[in-house]
Amino acid sequence: MTQDPLVVFTPSGRRGRVPAGTPVLEAARKLGVDLDSVCGGRGICSRCQITPGTGQFAKHGVTVEDGALSEWNAVEERYRQKRGLASGRRLGCQAKVLGDVVIDVPPESQVHRQVVRKAATARDIVMDPATRLAFVQVAEPDMHDPSGDLQRLRDALARDWGVEAVEVPLSVLSRLQPALRKGGWQVTVALNKGHHDARHRLLDVWPGFHDGPLLGLAVDLGSTTIAAHLTDLRTGAVLASAGVMNPQIRFGEDLMSRVSYAMMNPGGAEAMTAAVREALNRLATEIAAEAQADPAAILEVVFVCNPVMHHLLLGLDPVELGQAPFALATSDALTLDAAALDLSSIGAAARAYILPCIAGHVGADCAAVALSEAPETSEDLVLIVDVGTNAEILLGDRSRVLACSSPTGPAFEGAQISSGQRAAPGAIEAIRIDPATKEPRFRVIGCELWSDDPGFAAAVGPTGVTGICGSGIIEAVAEMRIAGLLDARGLIGSAEQTGTPRSIPEGRTHAYVIHEAGEQRITVTQSDIRAIQLAKSALYAGARLLMDDMGVDRVDRVVLAGAFGAHISPLHAMVLGMIPDARLDAVTSAGNAAGTGARMALCNLADRARIEAQVRRITKIETAIEPKFQEHFVAANALPHATDPFPELARIVTLPDVTFNAGGGDDGRRRRRRG
Amino acid sequence: MTQDPLVVFTPSGRRGRVPAGTPVLEAARKLGVDLDSVCGGRGICSRCQITPGTGQFAKHGVTVEDGALSEWNAVEERYRQKRGLASGRRLGCQAKVLGDVVIDVPPESQVHRQVVRKAATARDIVMDPATRLAFVQVAEPDMHDPSGDLQRLRDALARDWGVEAVEVPLSVLSRLQPALRKGGWQVTVALNKGHHDARHRLLDVWPGFHDGPLLGLAVDLGSTTIAAHLTDLRTGAVLASAGVMNPQIRFGEDLMSRVSYAMMNPGGAEAMTAAVREALNRLATEIAAEAQADPAAILEVVFVCNPVMHHLLLGLDPVELGQAPFALATSDALTLDAAALDLSSIGAAARAYILPCIAGHVGADCAAVALSEAPETSEDLVLIVDVGTNAEILLGDRSRVLACSSPTGPAFEGAQISSGQRAAPGAIEAIRIDPATKEPRFRVIGCELWSDDPGFAAAVGPTGVTGICGSGIIEAVAEMRIAGLLDARGLIGSAEQTGTPRSIPEGRTHAYVIHEAGEQRITVTQSDIRAIQLAKSALYAGARLLMDDMGVDRVDRVVLAGAFGAHISPLHAMVLGMIPDARLDAVTSAGNAAGTGARMALCNLADRARIEAQVRRITKIETAIEPKFQEHFVAANALPHATDPFPELARIVTLPDVTFNAGGGDDGRRRRRRG
Repeated sequence: MTQDPLVVFTPSGRRGRVPAGTPVLEAARKLGVDLDSVCGGRGICSRCQITPGTGQFAKHGVTVEDGALSEWNAVEERYRQKRGLASGRRLGCQAKVLGDVVIDVPPESQVHRQVVRKAATARDIVMDPATRLAFVQVAEPDMHDPSGDLQRLRDALARDWGVEAVEVPLSVLSRLQPALRKGGWQVTVALNKGHHDARHRLLDVWPGFHDGPLLGLAVDLGSTTIAAHLTDLRTGAVLASAGVMNPQIRFGEDLMSRVSYAMMNPGGAEAMTAAVREALNRLATEIAAEAQADPAAILEVVFVCNPVMHHLLLGLDPVELGQAPFALATSDALTLDAAALDLSSIGAAARAYILPCIAGHVGADCAAVALSEAPETSEDLVLIVDVGTNAEILLGDRSRVLACSSPTGPAFEGAQISSGQRAAPGAIEAIRIDPATKEPRFRVIGCELWSDDPGFAAAVGPTGVTGICGSGIIEAVAEMRIAGLLDARGLIGSAEQTGTPRSIPEGRTHAYVIHEAGEQRITVTQSDIRAIQLAKSALYAGARLLMDDMGVDRVDRVVLAGAFGAHISPLHAMVLGMIPDARLDAVTSAGNAAGTGARMALCNLADRARIEAQVRRITKIETAIEPKFQEHFVAANALPHATDPFPELARIVTLPDVTFNAGGGDDGRRRRRRG
Repeated sequence: MTQDPLVVFTPSGRRGRVPAGTPVLEAARKLGVDLDSVCGGRGICSRCQITPGTGQFAKHGVTVEDGALSEWNAVEERYRQKRGLASGRRLGCQAKVLGDVVIDVPPESQVHRQVVRKAATARDIVMDPATRLAFVQVAEPDMHDPSGDLQRLRDALARDWGVEAVEVPLSVLSRLQPALRKGGWQVTVALNKGHHDARHRLLDVWPGFHDGPLLGLAVDLGSTTIAAHLTDLRTGAVLASAGVMNPQIRFGEDLMSRVSYAMMNPGGAEAMTAAVREALNRLATEIAAEAQADPAAILEVVFVCNPVMHHLLLGLDPVELGQAPFALATSDALTLDAAALDLSSIGAAARAYILPCIAGHVGADCAAVALSEAPETSEDLVLIVDVGTNAEILLGDRSRVLACSSPTGPAFEGAQISSGQRAAPGAIEAIRIDPATKEPRFRVIGCELWSDDPGFAAAVGPTGVTGICGSGIIEAVAEMRIAGLLDARGLIGSAEQTGTPRSIPEGRTHAYVIHEAGEQRITVTQSDIRAIQLAKSALYAGARLLMDDMGVDRVDRVVLAGAFGAHISPLHAMVLGMIPDARLDAVTSAGNAAGTGARMALCNLADRARIEAQVRRITKIETAIEPKFQEHFVAANALPHATDPFPELARIVTLPDVTFNAGGGDDGRRRRRRG
């Protein structure tokens, strides 16, 4: 008696015996090997391409003889002639196992392929999308056994794809009859799987075999900017990225002013909801145009956003988020029809997924950061800070994860700073001050040269030097402290005290002149310093609260998330005491972690379940009601800190031990001694 | 050791022992007794009123002592003072069982109460609605354990009502936060249960305790008329009934002309869909106004309709229904958001249920008739005929049920009849012809008098006698046959042959004059007879096909359904041979059975499951492809029939054995002998 042939699949290593004559695709399914197929084994889609090995495989103990797979059949041959097949490739649905064989499944034939990204810090995404294409052959109507076209489609989906209980929205149902007839009773459907139940729903239908496009949109809905990544749901590839301003800005610059607008103006919340939904439609249309795609091919949208944006997107009044106890209308993740959000520019039956909110101040954007950075899998203790108008802070390791938000205000974004501005061409983004001469040099956005490089003025061009952006002001304040222009309490010294004419009086305080050109003068004023101190104290105090709860004095790693976090210099952030002391090389940027989290949730269904479960396990700390927050906040006012030691920082930089008084002129130290 | 007290509930007879101190409501739940509650036992809603017995109950072997129930407590006392309680009544949630007791649950305290209807033939409806009110106390938000208001509501629903997995549409979610705060963290929700899964969804939310209204609409969407019943979903009571013309009539009088309109005119189907949805919105608004209710309180709508109306309601192109194989886009029952049908005048989160279609020609209206008449429970063989432009026919008993539709055309509705008209004031609806004098007398709609009664002309008033409606033409043709004015082949005799000047020549044929006044002359022409013969032959042939399949020559009962069926005289229908021979008292009218079926599906969730299962079991016969249909059709052309015996009819009426020729003048019998 001859044994059934042995099949070994690589790279999975799965192996087993199958009856001679079994198609490779069927063998793969039987052995739990990830081998893609859209057409269900009809030799149409070519997604199941495999590379059979030849010769001896000592590792697997298999010798592959000639004839281990069946000869090319007519279907496979036709496919090769019509569409071409790379050398050595076979169609897994047509090639049959006849003898022992080793079969390699190339990455592009795997459903759960990894999307390898370019940036080194970026996390890989494993494909396991909620929506996939499925080709089916549907029975023709029979007057003797009348049943609807939909019922016969459901039968085919159950038979070929093992899918039961398929919901079909009217917008898809209305196109089913013509599609079936045009496709000769063959159609391709976009099959969407829920992750809370076993239900599926059809998001689209096409006549015959349809191989895409099948698109998804990952949206990071910020207070200021709405950023989106158009993604191919078959491969995970980002086809285009785009951003637009959030039009709600006209109702209020920051979150709280928008909440106020909703409170003070009847219909205000509705107006803001309509504005953001309209912008989303425009963004979807534009990003699809950029990728030369039809926006109607977008069948899934994932949103990450803070709680106020979350409520305004959903059409929920955000007023409760503006006052204690900061109750969310709903905190869990939401899966709903995109049409319920008036997203009319995309597929009529498209679905929207919104990540869960962690708490009334800690939104789905922070959940997305937690998904991307996965602190719950970290071996060492990691502090993750998403810096913005509100800072979202996560602290944790494998044992436990904590989260809070802290009201840093907009100073880190260049707002409420005398020469501050948004990050745009012409804004100072980096600055160095010579500790000896106290002279500054700087770089502006849009120009690679430093201000003391030859040709700087020409290179800056017509924009000129327009102001200081968020990362610029952080560097400026930190450099002033390092250069001895600023004392630990945050007072700017006078020209006499500092020995530079760039220290100029301004009322009873002083300002430091960074740049002068004609009428224009860019300075850092004493009130700028105060604004940065308030912001960084709030951030630090939030982190400290989490550290208290965790029972630790120091963290192993700090991750700066957010577009802004990508531009902050770790050294300068530590000089300011924005973040707790840590080894400088343990402070890294995660880039747009919230956006990455959105893309992960778009491409991987299990990631949705993962973050929903994780959000429930996170310990939430409400800074507004923690008595110690105020204490931490006051102590964090000093640069870098009044009481907490910064030994790692001290190993790199020695901060000058200067003290200035508020009035200027005299030596503060002397005054204090007198007082 | 004393035993726990014994509780006996009437009328259910359920009994059991409960620990002393158990509230009656809890005892009822424990023993599976149907006792209503909206407030969950808080003494607010009074739905759980019960009547405790006193003294000896020999039947139950119980003697109820004084003190078998607890004294009135403060909650119960306050309810009695504020709202009143009928003598002998207690609140089941407050009264506690202390000793053996017999407790009567009055009908109005039962959830599954029966709606007893007035008409003798009408079926009772048992209440088991999909949507009910539930009062809940929701936990207040806690900053230390932040969760959304919705999540805390879900927790409360799971705890108090055992309801998990509650879906909440955005329109309800957006009103949850203010409702919770206005109601002091108490709200009442409209909880809708699906019958295909265990999921619930919230259809509305109100602050505090809310006792209604909670409304549903049962809609019979006909080609000509849209009829609706506004129903209280708590009691099953019909609060108002109303009908409007189907505005699709302007696109085509009958179904096939509407299908043609959709085929010939791009956008035609969409225009008809928009028209019917607009009419439904208007109807909902008007019917709510009639009941002095807010249309937004309508939270459920049930539709029954024929397949073409079904598709046009859903926004599906009906073109496939106009040609073999008559494929439905979808045949199964549908549960969907009423908003998906643009029903904007009713509750924003209202749900719609559409009964299943049986086949491409046999719609949800026929399914509703099957639900109402339940042939599958009949001990004897019943033929159910819903007469309209298409006749839907059901035949069956406990063993098996068959269905078909037959294209009778509009003759039965007075269309294509020379003096025909819709049933409206002035239309002849009943007629008798004296067999001796051949003189007619008749009655018109809107007048109780017969035409030979004194004062008839005055009583008819300004409308006068305007034409003949559907039931009138059936009676006229049958009476002409009985009076010997018409032979078995359907030929009208000449004045000479019949002996009455009312037989007048019309071309090569004759007509019978029913009424003459001035210029106006109402006649039954030879072509009217032909139209009725075609219609009745189609109807009879359809019934015969089902009888063939069932292997029978006769039926035990005939049920005439539909508004028109209610007005057909069984004797006259049998003289025509519209229906198979049966005992005259076994031919009954079911009234608007489709409308009753719609109301049953609205009020009883199990009925939805029942008809869905039953529709799958029904044997569908497609008359268009059955070769024997044509044979039956031809044989049925004679009055009553060329070959089938009508023994029951013969026992009541002897039809004159006359034969006329087509040309008139001569005696047909003689001619035939000569020929």
